[in-house]
Amino acid sequence: MTVRSIGDVGEFAFLSRLLPQLRRGRDTVVGPGQDCAVIRCGRDKFLLTIDALVEGTHFEAGWLTPYQIGRKGFLVNASDAAAMGGAPRCCVVSLCVPRSYPVRDLFRLQAGIAAAAAECGASIVGGNLARADTLNVSIALLAAAPRRIITRQGARPGDRIYVTGTLGDAAVGLQRLREGKRSGPAIRRFREPTPRLHAGQVLTASHLASSMIDVSDGLVQDLGHLCEQSRVGAVVHTDRVPLSPAYRAQLRDAPALALHGGEDYELLCTIPERHVSRLKRAHLGCPITCIGEITATRRVRLLTRGQPPRSLRSGGYDHFRQWS
Amino acid sequence: MTVRSIGDVGEFAFLSRLLPQLRRGRDTVVGPGQDCAVIRCGRDKFLLTIDALVEGTHFEAGWLTPYQIGRKGFLVNASDAAAMGGAPRCCVVSLCVPRSYPVRDLFRLQAGIAAAAAECGASIVGGNLARADTLNVSIALLAAAPRRIITRQGARPGDRIYVTGTLGDAAVGLQRLREGKRSGPAIRRFREPTPRLHAGQVLTASHLASSMIDVSDGLVQDLGHLCEQSRVGAVVHTDRVPLSPAYRAQLRDAPALALHGGEDYELLCTIPERHVSRLKRAHLGCPITCIGEITATRRVRLLTRGQPPRSLRSGGYDHFRQWS
Repeated sequence: MTVRSIGDVGEFAFLSRLLPQLRRGRDTVVGPGQDCAVIRCGRDKFLLTIDALVEGTHFEAGWLTPYQIGRKGFLVNASDAAAMGGAPRCCVVSLCVPRSYPVRDLFRLQAGIAAAAAECGASIVGGNLARADTLNVSIALLAAAPRRIITRQGARPGDRIYVTGTLGDAAVGLQRLREGKRSGPAIRRFREPTPRLHAGQVLTASHLASSMIDVSDGLVQDLGHLCEQSRVGAVVHTDRVPLSPAYRAQLRDAPALALHGGEDYELLCTIPERHVSRLKRAHLGCPITCIGEITATRRVRLLTRGQPPRSLRSGGYDHFRQWS
Repeated sequence: MTVRSIGDVGEFAFLSRLLPQLRRGRDTVVGPGQDCAVIRCGRDKFLLTIDALVEGTHFEAGWLTPYQIGRKGFLVNASDAAAMGGAPRCCVVSLCVPRSYPVRDLFRLQAGIAAAAAECGASIVGGNLARADTLNVSIALLAAAPRRIITRQGARPGDRIYVTGTLGDAAVGLQRLREGKRSGPAIRRFREPTPRLHAGQVLTASHLASSMIDVSDGLVQDLGHLCEQSRVGAVVHTDRVPLSPAYRAQLRDAPALALHGGEDYELLCTIPERHVSRLKRAHLGCPITCIGEITATRRVRLLTRGQPPRSLRSGGYDHFRQWS
């Protein structure tokens, strides 16, 4: 019998088999498979999420300073909270470092986590330090949940698809880092995500969004997750995908990295058509762009001017397939 | 200038410099430096903790099955909750595995976490899967806090020092695994901690214990932490340290591994003398043994029959000093 590895199967195929097996706890309002879990704590609801930054997987030595690693470690978690309209409160940090890791870098890393947490209204309440061959920062974040819970499951045919900010910059930054570059706006974007906490809270509290996810694995991949969980499909107008000046300077209008590149940490949400006029008056604190709409046909279709429509399997970042 | 590494400085010296720097959040009842943080969630209080199991650090390939790795990954967190009288509710799991890791082992690992969580009354509510060179399981656990919070800081001179169960077994098990053995009661103990959740809850709720900690880094090390945080000292009668039949069969009465070996996950607590008679009527669900008492003189002294007293610097498990 062949033993299949996680590299053969891939992250998402594994998770789609695993998640239905997990028993739901009595305090669980929303279980695994979303950006955060929602749990009942007494009379209140809280969001809980965990994420890891691993050297050699998420970044190479020299790409980020220890302070930036700490910041990014916290901010990717905050982005998960943003995707469900949460307000970060506190985190616990699991730091695994080699014995040779300089103490001053450990202080800087910790200072980066603490600074990012403070900016998001949270604090570090505990942690664990262990030895490992490579640097591994896992952070679990507890956030206050909004009254109304939005998941990846509420998209309906006819809903408009919106995305905050611009896409593809982090992927351009990653490309430039791999080419040996060490500065520029795209690299800054890769190093320092901006979790859309305020936008997430407004989109949730104002009953605007019907579903939401953060774009961490690439637009097509994450839209695929949202469509799968909502049992719908989508049409995306690729020329409407918002691109930054830095992106255009590098790649002109070629949208491939904006469609498939990960780590932008923007919000992707669906908004019922009747709420679209209200969206224009909402104060999100960042741009938001309509890039397509939800369809009943369960596939993601990309429309590009002058080209035939492309029906896509999701194809963004999968930790284990990228290199297989 | 010499750059000092965490291996030069050690885990606890680093933490003693780091922890005072951390800003306390508005929801923080008890911050870093305890077995768990205590946080206010609306009208209730919760415990939050995180711990990691790393291949090559906590165990070598072949020492534990994937199922046992999963179980242990959860149970060491549950032990932290036990040390503060908590009742585990839910956890999030950060799994970092190599691309070659078999999918069936990943299912078994996850099943081990889920089984241990269910036995402790908790469930897995979320997680993250990432690629890494070596297996790294970080689990964050949220537990219901008792009304009365006990930390490492409440020990007073004259309090009796108690420990649950027996000590040193996990260290014997570790020794036997290193010798190439693969079964026996001591190895079982290394593989499968028994978090003393019920005992922790009774000792807390009944106002018996004045301070508590779980013995994860060795009795002397963890008693040292408790004494330091309570600003007291201790006298330990080494011949009173409870040893299992398996331990005695291996090492006769030599207490070194029971004093310094880690990973027993028993509870170490202090009990004011006036409560000792009440302790005898308490139903803890496990043995508890008086091994010494708290003193005003701030050092840990070991008394052994027929030997001069030894004043000890703490000397248990430090992730970074063990090999330096």
